[in-house]
Amino acid sequence: MAGSSFLTIALAQMEVLPGRPDLNTAKMLAMMKKARWEGAQMIVFPEMAIPGRLLGDVWKQTAFLRDCEEYGRQVVAASREICVIFGNVAVEWQKKNEDGQVRKYNACFVAKDGSLCGAGSCGDSGAGSAGNCGTCNGGSNSAGSHFPYPYPFRVKTVLATNHGLDERRYFCSGRFLAAELALPVASLAVPVEVEIGGRLWRLGCMIGKGDLDCPGTEEDYPGGIDCPGDRENNSDKDPALKKDDVDLYINIAGLPFTLTDSRMRHRRLSSLAGKCGKPLIYLNHTGIQNCGKTIYVFDGASAVFDGEGKALCTCPSFQETLAFVKLSPSGAPAAPATTPASSSGLRSGNHAAGSDIATGSDIATGSDIAAVYEALTYGIERFMRSIGVSRVVIGLSGGIDSAVAACLYTQVLGPENVLLVNMPSAYNSATTKNLAARLAQNLGTLYAVIPIQEAVNYTVSQVNSATITNLSTGASFSLELTPFMIENVQARDRFSRILAALAAAFHGVISCNGNKSELTIGYSTLYGDLCGFLAVLADLWKHQVYELATYLNDTVYRQEVIPTGIIEIVPSAELSPAQDVDKGLGDPLVYPYHDFLFKAFVGQPEKATPEDILTWYLGGELEKRIGCRIGLVESIFKTPAAFVADLERWWRSYCGLGVAKRLQAPPVLAVSGQAYGGDHHEAQNGEAYFTSRYYKLKEQILALAAHPAHPAHPANPAPPLPLSHHREK
Amino acid sequence: MAGSSFLTIALAQMEVLPGRPDLNTAKMLAMMKKARWEGAQMIVFPEMAIPGRLLGDVWKQTAFLRDCEEYGRQVVAASREICVIFGNVAVEWQKKNEDGQVRKYNACFVAKDGSLCGAGSCGDSGAGSAGNCGTCNGGSNSAGSHFPYPYPFRVKTVLATNHGLDERRYFCSGRFLAAELALPVASLAVPVEVEIGGRLWRLGCMIGKGDLDCPGTEEDYPGGIDCPGDRENNSDKDPALKKDDVDLYINIAGLPFTLTDSRMRHRRLSSLAGKCGKPLIYLNHTGIQNCGKTIYVFDGASAVFDGEGKALCTCPSFQETLAFVKLSPSGAPAAPATTPASSSGLRSGNHAAGSDIATGSDIATGSDIAAVYEALTYGIERFMRSIGVSRVVIGLSGGIDSAVAACLYTQVLGPENVLLVNMPSAYNSATTKNLAARLAQNLGTLYAVIPIQEAVNYTVSQVNSATITNLSTGASFSLELTPFMIENVQARDRFSRILAALAAAFHGVISCNGNKSELTIGYSTLYGDLCGFLAVLADLWKHQVYELATYLNDTVYRQEVIPTGIIEIVPSAELSPAQDVDKGLGDPLVYPYHDFLFKAFVGQPEKATPEDILTWYLGGELEKRIGCRIGLVESIFKTPAAFVADLERWWRSYCGLGVAKRLQAPPVLAVSGQAYGGDHHEAQNGEAYFTSRYYKLKEQILALAAHPAHPAHPANPAPPLPLSHHREK
Repeated sequence: MAGSSFLTIALAQMEVLPGRPDLNTAKMLAMMKKARWEGAQMIVFPEMAIPGRLLGDVWKQTAFLRDCEEYGRQVVAASREICVIFGNVAVEWQKKNEDGQVRKYNACFVAKDGSLCGAGSCGDSGAGSAGNCGTCNGGSNSAGSHFPYPYPFRVKTVLATNHGLDERRYFCSGRFLAAELALPVASLAVPVEVEIGGRLWRLGCMIGKGDLDCPGTEEDYPGGIDCPGDRENNSDKDPALKKDDVDLYINIAGLPFTLTDSRMRHRRLSSLAGKCGKPLIYLNHTGIQNCGKTIYVFDGASAVFDGEGKALCTCPSFQETLAFVKLSPSGAPAAPATTPASSSGLRSGNHAAGSDIATGSDIATGSDIAAVYEALTYGIERFMRSIGVSRVVIGLSGGIDSAVAACLYTQVLGPENVLLVNMPSAYNSATTKNLAARLAQNLGTLYAVIPIQEAVNYTVSQVNSATITNLSTGASFSLELTPFMIENVQARDRFSRILAALAAAFHGVISCNGNKSELTIGYSTLYGDLCGFLAVLADLWKHQVYELATYLNDTVYRQEVIPTGIIEIVPSAELSPAQDVDKGLGDPLVYPYHDFLFKAFVGQPEKATPEDILTWYLGGELEKRIGCRIGLVESIFKTPAAFVADLERWWRSYCGLGVAKRLQAPPVLAVSGQAYGGDHHEAQNGEAYFTSRYYKLKEQILALAAHPAHPAHPANPAPPLPLSHHREK
Repeated sequence: MAGSSFLTIALAQMEVLPGRPDLNTAKMLAMMKKARWEGAQMIVFPEMAIPGRLLGDVWKQTAFLRDCEEYGRQVVAASREICVIFGNVAVEWQKKNEDGQVRKYNACFVAKDGSLCGAGSCGDSGAGSAGNCGTCNGGSNSAGSHFPYPYPFRVKTVLATNHGLDERRYFCSGRFLAAELALPVASLAVPVEVEIGGRLWRLGCMIGKGDLDCPGTEEDYPGGIDCPGDRENNSDKDPALKKDDVDLYINIAGLPFTLTDSRMRHRRLSSLAGKCGKPLIYLNHTGIQNCGKTIYVFDGASAVFDGEGKALCTCPSFQETLAFVKLSPSGAPAAPATTPASSSGLRSGNHAAGSDIATGSDIATGSDIAAVYEALTYGIERFMRSIGVSRVVIGLSGGIDSAVAACLYTQVLGPENVLLVNMPSAYNSATTKNLAARLAQNLGTLYAVIPIQEAVNYTVSQVNSATITNLSTGASFSLELTPFMIENVQARDRFSRILAALAAAFHGVISCNGNKSELTIGYSTLYGDLCGFLAVLADLWKHQVYELATYLNDTVYRQEVIPTGIIEIVPSAELSPAQDVDKGLGDPLVYPYHDFLFKAFVGQPEKATPEDILTWYLGGELEKRIGCRIGLVESIFKTPAAFVADLERWWRSYCGLGVAKRLQAPPVLAVSGQAYGGDHHEAQNGEAYFTSRYYKLKEQILALAAHPAHPAHPANPAPPLPLSHHREK
């Protein structure tokens, strides 16, 4: 195919295994072989294809860095008759980062015929020289700043701090490099020139989202954070690599799926390509990576856009793919997309006409909850594979959270690998016990009923009857568990006593079924329902858990696998008579309001505080700002004072016990772009803080008590809901 | 005192409360009042005195930032008749950070007579103008780059990424700012000029360690990381602020205590002052701050050095202090130190003669283990105060870890607030039960014995007899707990069933007594001995726990409060017959070797991997490199193959289950500068990785099996120790 009028490109949407340069490189070499066999002249791999990205302080292991370099050399050496573009760490051993570590870059390498391209000298000597750009080997080039570009690779301009990435802890950015070389940042935006099929291609290599968002201008760096507002504005910005210098833009990425980001990704890329009038390749990987407390799924959804912004080819989400596409030598207008029969998983190119940019990505065209379902099941499957476990034990209460978790795990692992356990105490209603049994029956899983009341009674009696001696005075006394404390005894009995032992005997792990609303305020018991290897629902607000339940019935199982009773019953922990579901009693949260209040607390790009909430309340725009139903606040709170008391109560929980519990909670599977852990850092700083302006606003609001009318949007007032007690350790 | 020939300076070594600008400012205003009353002409506060530093994403709360600005204005407004120097966040609302956040700096403010000093115009108009430097207010000045320094504050040059600080996630560095303004970094090293007592003082303001370490040169940035080697070299480096431009150096800091760093701090500062021939004030705060998983204690130990490097005054460690010192107007030689009677906690100036720089700091002059003791007790006290709890429950096994924890908590809380609980199963020996009782008796605490065997039997029988039904097939079966699984049942029974309930009834918290050696390889049970509100020993290797035990007996209690039996018995979990202490059986670790091996894994600045270990082993320098006793390796391992198998076993645990367990472990109290969490980030990436070079080295070593002689340093071979099984969940 070489020498034809089209450039045939292989899109290597590989699953990157973090911390496994050996396996990643083996896969890359196999994909290169296949791509060559299929006639591809160029193959594009994702950002950090060799090492992965979320590695923690493995980035400080010298031996690991040398290993990555060595595997990078193997990829370069294998680039015979094909141009290969890939991400890897580049190490400049003679230099140091600001903090004394050895200097590292997040880099994009271009190689052909066994040599790296793109060092400064290539650009100087002009067309045709790229194939002979010297013997420089990746990462150890010591060239100074005499050339237009000082390295035989391209350096990521703006490093990421979101999604647990923490790149500034390890890498030197292109911005810093430019400052060091006393060059303007834009001067490092130099394309890589490569001769392919008798024609010189000027490749505009960009790494990740930062390089798309940030670019030449000095005043404005809105990239890096998932901020939908900003992002829309950015789609009109020029890339730092000027369109007249570039024949083909290539963005190698390692971007996790998030609801806030993935939808808009193709639209932005398409807009950028169309604006520049040059084709653009976006190459993202699949798989999962984590920063410890937070697990991210990577959706791939790589795509090629022509110079009019039309999608020539899109790869499926969450599926490793080697896809092929042909580009005309002129770059624009585009040639028809090609889909070789041998490329499994490839979607045919999508030629959208008109202004609405349609793409073939599942994520971009499906509903939010469908995307969430896909992300969660993919994440469960990949995370369990990575830790080498295929069985799970789930405490099935008859409530919504454990029901949804049971359905997800059953989809991923098969019913024979899912053990559902109902563990009733005296407070569990026949209603929920029957609902749990019906769900298990519908799923056809393994099922057991193991009552806990006897053990709970034993623990209470053992603790209450224990003789405590004061060895200074010789006096003895005993302690007494309150009903509230016994609620937590029940939760711990279920998880730490029964499920932990059962999981071991079953050779499985425990599912933590908590949702984000609970996790925000610590409405859960440490060493109780917070136990687990993974918190699969912990980045979903309660209303999203309900949506997912409906989706599971309607679309996934296409039958009422989750009994309607589970969806309709009042959410309750059933740990005391005050939580009697048959009397309609349950959680102290009014989810249609509190979900949105809590979302504002952890929101991006700025986190709302009580000061903001009161400001919006006084301005009559609270519901609009946080996104809940208009009129809801007035229907919940009889008085402004009740509204303020509720706000303070949950703010204190969120900043206090909530933090302490999250620190010991299982890893969260992220879907929102604002997940606890990697996208929300926190310290355990004791008592919650209220700003001085908060107190002034509060005074104003409490003065309103004289005036019964709410400042918020008027609505039909409903009787206030009872705010019963909540569980806290 | 104003107008005298000396400059009287108040050192406000305050306890900074992270996230409490209200309380910090109130304290600052009180200290300013007292300082003025004592005749001080200048008062120096620490870095980020108003907000604190370890706040997580509170830095993204706009309302919090405005609050800090407002409190900063109050401090400036209160600077009548005194020059105040303090750290605060500076916000430039019109600009953005690289990632789209509002632009923030870690800044040093200088104010006098109600106005900020140090904006560019001050420098231009020369001597005497500092008192009239305009109406600019902190943080919202929009001055461009027309002046030598564009802001009425100084910006931290190099941001920290260690100690959980993550400053690059939130702040813009002076380096970045310089690049943005197209200025060399050194051009931002502009002193602040202030007229005090009829004389113009040029103050060289530096923030934190980064500004001391990194300065004007572009090639070398060794600061930021606790690296003793580098640090020694740095002491000869010039500060970016040239000595001819400066009359007095002021380093405001927020540096946590670490064993690797605190000792050398005064020596470096002294050397810097002596080298420049100018006096230097080092002002660090006390208190604690945390990044969630890791709690740091701040030792203060502020000091003033004269132009010969002599300590004029040093403040005590871990004690809030308002100290006073007088400087001669010429800067050097120094005037005698002054210690006003009213300044509590002040050490008298230390006039060391000769080359040995002695200082008055406890930390700098005491032993390592004394400093560890001080740091741990201070950390316990402050952390418990911050979460509002004053009682603790400790599972007392009769082993060394729980014994040391019991002594520490008893020292801090008093014996009446410490409940020690011995919870024997069938596997606990009379030996350890008696040792536990004797320790409790010696401490005079509250004590209870609560046996667990009955409950453990109940759980085993309940789990083993549970009927599990396959709802797809209708078949039923049961599971069986192995003896290994029952070990973990015991651990969970003690902590999640007994201690958690007991702690609630006692209105206290659970102590997690695990040490760093266990935590490294996950030798502990989740929801068992990993439970707790704080892991007070988790930054100490096992041998340090022993040292601390001896120190507690010899120095703190001055009697054998920890029975010798506890110190001499073999370390054991006593969960099975294989861990029978009366037969000398116990943990699978040979601590005198494994402590040092593990320390190399998590070490700074580079983390050792098995490749490094094998390289050192082959080079005969392993023991020297990791710091253990020469000859030890050969005495432990009969063959090279046994050595390699042991290495791989623990590397797998460290990278595998160890990570999973640490993610759900309690916060660690840091003392080493290399604590898990803030100083050691990690991902849960499944199977442990070995580099390609590791496999080559391993082959070489296994080939040595033919030659019985070890490559390591020859020593008297001792019989190999048994490596019995270890607990894993």
